[in-house]
Amino acid sequence: MTTPLARLQKSMIEKNLTYYLIPSEDPHQSEYVDDHYKCRQFISGFTGSSGAVLAEQAESRLWTDGRYFTQAEAQIDPEQMKLMKMGVSGVPTILEYLTEHLSEGDVLSLNGRMINTAYGRKLSRLAASKKAVLETDHTLAEDLWTGRPDAAASPIFIHEDIYAGESVPSKLKRIRSCMETVSARAHFIASLPDIAWIFNLRGNDMPCTPLFYSYVWITQESCCLFVRETCLSEEVRRRLEQDKITILPYEQIDSFLKKQEGSILIDPDTVNYKLYLELEKNQIIFGENPSSGMKAVKNETQIKGLKECHLSDGIAMTRFMFWLKQNIGSVPMTERSVQDRLEEERRKLPLYQGPSFDTICAYKDHAAMMHYSSTEESDVCLEPEGMLLIDSGGQYLTGTTDVTRTFILGDISEEERRNFTLVLKSMLSLSDAKFLLGCRGSSLDILARGPLWEEGIDYRCGTGHGVGHFLGVHEGPNAFRWQIRDNQLDAVLVPGMVTTDEPGVYIPGKYGIRTENMLLCRKQRQNEYGSFLEFEHLTLVPIDMDGVDEALLNDKEIRLLYAYHRLVFDSLSPHLTDEEASWLYHFLKIQNS
Amino acid sequence: MTTPLARLQKSMIEKNLTYYLIPSEDPHQSEYVDDHYKCRQFISGFTGSSGAVLAEQAESRLWTDGRYFTQAEAQIDPEQMKLMKMGVSGVPTILEYLTEHLSEGDVLSLNGRMINTAYGRKLSRLAASKKAVLETDHTLAEDLWTGRPDAAASPIFIHEDIYAGESVPSKLKRIRSCMETVSARAHFIASLPDIAWIFNLRGNDMPCTPLFYSYVWITQESCCLFVRETCLSEEVRRRLEQDKITILPYEQIDSFLKKQEGSILIDPDTVNYKLYLELEKNQIIFGENPSSGMKAVKNETQIKGLKECHLSDGIAMTRFMFWLKQNIGSVPMTERSVQDRLEEERRKLPLYQGPSFDTICAYKDHAAMMHYSSTEESDVCLEPEGMLLIDSGGQYLTGTTDVTRTFILGDISEEERRNFTLVLKSMLSLSDAKFLLGCRGSSLDILARGPLWEEGIDYRCGTGHGVGHFLGVHEGPNAFRWQIRDNQLDAVLVPGMVTTDEPGVYIPGKYGIRTENMLLCRKQRQNEYGSFLEFEHLTLVPIDMDGVDEALLNDKEIRLLYAYHRLVFDSLSPHLTDEEASWLYHFLKIQNS
Repeated sequence: MTTPLARLQKSMIEKNLTYYLIPSEDPHQSEYVDDHYKCRQFISGFTGSSGAVLAEQAESRLWTDGRYFTQAEAQIDPEQMKLMKMGVSGVPTILEYLTEHLSEGDVLSLNGRMINTAYGRKLSRLAASKKAVLETDHTLAEDLWTGRPDAAASPIFIHEDIYAGESVPSKLKRIRSCMETVSARAHFIASLPDIAWIFNLRGNDMPCTPLFYSYVWITQESCCLFVRETCLSEEVRRRLEQDKITILPYEQIDSFLKKQEGSILIDPDTVNYKLYLELEKNQIIFGENPSSGMKAVKNETQIKGLKECHLSDGIAMTRFMFWLKQNIGSVPMTERSVQDRLEEERRKLPLYQGPSFDTICAYKDHAAMMHYSSTEESDVCLEPEGMLLIDSGGQYLTGTTDVTRTFILGDISEEERRNFTLVLKSMLSLSDAKFLLGCRGSSLDILARGPLWEEGIDYRCGTGHGVGHFLGVHEGPNAFRWQIRDNQLDAVLVPGMVTTDEPGVYIPGKYGIRTENMLLCRKQRQNEYGSFLEFEHLTLVPIDMDGVDEALLNDKEIRLLYAYHRLVFDSLSPHLTDEEASWLYHFLKIQNS
Repeated sequence: MTTPLARLQKSMIEKNLTYYLIPSEDPHQSEYVDDHYKCRQFISGFTGSSGAVLAEQAESRLWTDGRYFTQAEAQIDPEQMKLMKMGVSGVPTILEYLTEHLSEGDVLSLNGRMINTAYGRKLSRLAASKKAVLETDHTLAEDLWTGRPDAAASPIFIHEDIYAGESVPSKLKRIRSCMETVSARAHFIASLPDIAWIFNLRGNDMPCTPLFYSYVWITQESCCLFVRETCLSEEVRRRLEQDKITILPYEQIDSFLKKQEGSILIDPDTVNYKLYLELEKNQIIFGENPSSGMKAVKNETQIKGLKECHLSDGIAMTRFMFWLKQNIGSVPMTERSVQDRLEEERRKLPLYQGPSFDTICAYKDHAAMMHYSSTEESDVCLEPEGMLLIDSGGQYLTGTTDVTRTFILGDISEEERRNFTLVLKSMLSLSDAKFLLGCRGSSLDILARGPLWEEGIDYRCGTGHGVGHFLGVHEGPNAFRWQIRDNQLDAVLVPGMVTTDEPGVYIPGKYGIRTENMLLCRKQRQNEYGSFLEFEHLTLVPIDMDGVDEALLNDKEIRLLYAYHRLVFDSLSPHLTDEEASWLYHFLKIQNS
């Protein structure tokens, strides 16, 4: 039996295609992708979330990033496919590879629905400069995929105003006002988190994020939602009609766009290139979706909900931690069994809808891989020694959580204790920032990174990302990052934004430490110098004091740690058993240091 | 007698010009301007360094910034000219004002030599969008200026390689390589500091910066220097010929540019709009001058020189400080007399060429004005009480210095002592940064600002600016700033860059505090995470301990302050009298705290 790749290459030869590109994305550039769209996985065998295959008629390459080098090496056949390690020095990006190899007369082909407009335009310019042809109407991988899963079409449900805090007409009004500012007659939206936010609707078409496949077309007078009609209940249909939303079939988006005229605002990062080509004859205004910035700023209702779900989440995490610390060494445990135990704790909670991302439960050296996911093969027994890193989160009707704690299971080395304490210093330092309105995450990042940089240590990722509200756990436009790439600046931080604060230390082959809290930006004070802002901890989970070397903390850090544990204790203790509460009370003993 | 403004307006009516714009700049967008080019001062009577007049036929407006509101109000006639306070909320910029008022058929006119290309292009687009006319060939102000000073034409002298550390051919080679990278056939340079740096030449055409009026045209094969030939000695001429530089008359630049073809690299911020119009028919590549980034990175010879001139400067400042602190209350002193005394101390030093900017010597509430300059009218007697802020610097053949100290002359309030200490914490905190290569000043700024922001205080300016080497005291592209305007990022910090670190507290009507050191960026360590960088103090002047509340400093800050004073003492004491040295020794007593 020939492999899917061999059949793809046969097809390329028949059609005379020099290159065929298969990315990981769906037509909406979603973070989590419905299995229906996993063509790259089907062709390559590689199951990681990120990567792309570039097939040539006689050879092929898989690009993926550092999280997946080991996994990709195990899953792909090196005879058939070469692994291109992204970010490793000397390894070209796909664009760089094509820039070097694409020749006059070559045909670069792909399914234009699976790449975004920005990337499509780059490929188009590249092909033109090489006198090559770019063909974006192919569906080679899809066509030869027998047994391809049907597209998900889960029921869409209403996200009630008591959780969302703002009505659909109010959101549409704000979006239309932004459209006016940029002189856009119409606005086309393909980003699923934006659509779910605008319409106060949620779905279940993909894991971990409550989204549904759809498109939206907005003008000053009308608003059309393109959606799989079987997903709509009578109730949802009524709510949409009441808000004067026209419902149209998801499949009709191409023909609808083809007929449009005038100035159209689109986000080149989330509208796919195929749909852009339908629109490009018009005056296209490229810009971030106005809804993207709006949904990043949580309203009073959402903030109230966030505090409620973090209280719930904190109860689950803290009960789990108590059980873990009490029973390690006496009860048999593995990465996967404790991960299940934590999920059980969360499932007991009101309004819990499921995990917000694939839990990372990583013991000892596994935790040095930032995005480790324990599998049947990699699972290990936990012993009363070393450290266990758990990064997990929940989707609640009231909001989305994301928390990391590193638990000390027994003896750890002095170096481990020192680095655990440095990570704590970093997390606390950023959480205590006071800053003038106008700052971006890039101005504040050094507050987290500074204590580690001072010791010559870095973590090779951002310090934190925005978090949606019962939406994606990774959400722009706010973030904490120090590197500014391509002059792309993160958003100015404003009250109501929620961002994670998650510094770490990762020593390959040895251990990994990360401590992550979610921070809510809020007003601190207003005076002649302007508006000062600060953060509030949303996460309510104790930090394992067995990892802390208090001698490394200065007075201010001790004060901050005590204040945080005081907040955790006061919030959680009414909801814990006496035994759990008295255990938690001991986290306050640092006060006497 | 009619005023210059009235005569300008008469001329505008005759020529049917609706608006006439008179900026403060010279044809090279220099920071300090030869008197010959001070048309705005001539027309308005306002002598400040920054501002622009927009005249209409029946009214006129002067825009200037916060440094000059008081001065401008005193110098202009409010009947004739309205003061537009830049940065005050609700006050439009000139562009905003024109956007609102410019109408179809209006003529917006000016001398295109006095604005840069970037601004000229903005005005041109604005005029087009309003169906108005932009005329840039007028010289109305110049023409009616009787008694206009001749243009300076000072002798040009060689800045020896023993100070510059790199030969002209080597610099030209590096520039030509950058031109190749951007596919520029030619490169036109109007920035005087760049030209002085490239040719290792200096002049004296304007105060405080050793520059000479000139232009440069570079191709792979040739290099033409446009300069006033009377300024060239035989020696300079020989050196230029030896380096294969063609010398052409300064006045011929227009006709020379008119004849050029092909792709031309220009910096839109320093090439004036008139000369850009001569070139615009060609393929223009807009970009920073390659020399701008190169001259910001000091070589080993320059760094050695910088250390020498800072030692000299430190001796002068410290002797002055000793004298000031010993004699305040017994010897009569005024702002201007002590400023002269400091200049006398500097004049005793080897290689000293003069001040690098107009000294700010500001007693008590005068220091709340960040750029106060003491005049005969404003001068006050110094008493043994309150604080005296002196911000000064010198031009040496070995480099340029810029230092601010705030001296405690007698009793100060608790609030003053607290803020003096906060400013010290800020300055020390930034100076101690350890950071990965890739950081910009905007990533580090919060290290200085943080201790003040924590107390709800801000200074309304950057934390620091780049400094030239026997060139301008304010030099890009590196800086410490937190605000990112128009997506304009400061340069990535690299070893060899020199930047000031000058946080402050300014309380209007009461006092001002600023402590400023110059910092040299250098390598700290290299490991698996990358290249870590740090700063080294160049400035060697003690900080007045009478202003420091040691109780507000943490252990680390006490360690940093002690280490700094140890460096100052060890460097300076061999050059001081026994009395001065033993006084300086007492700055180390903080060690015992």
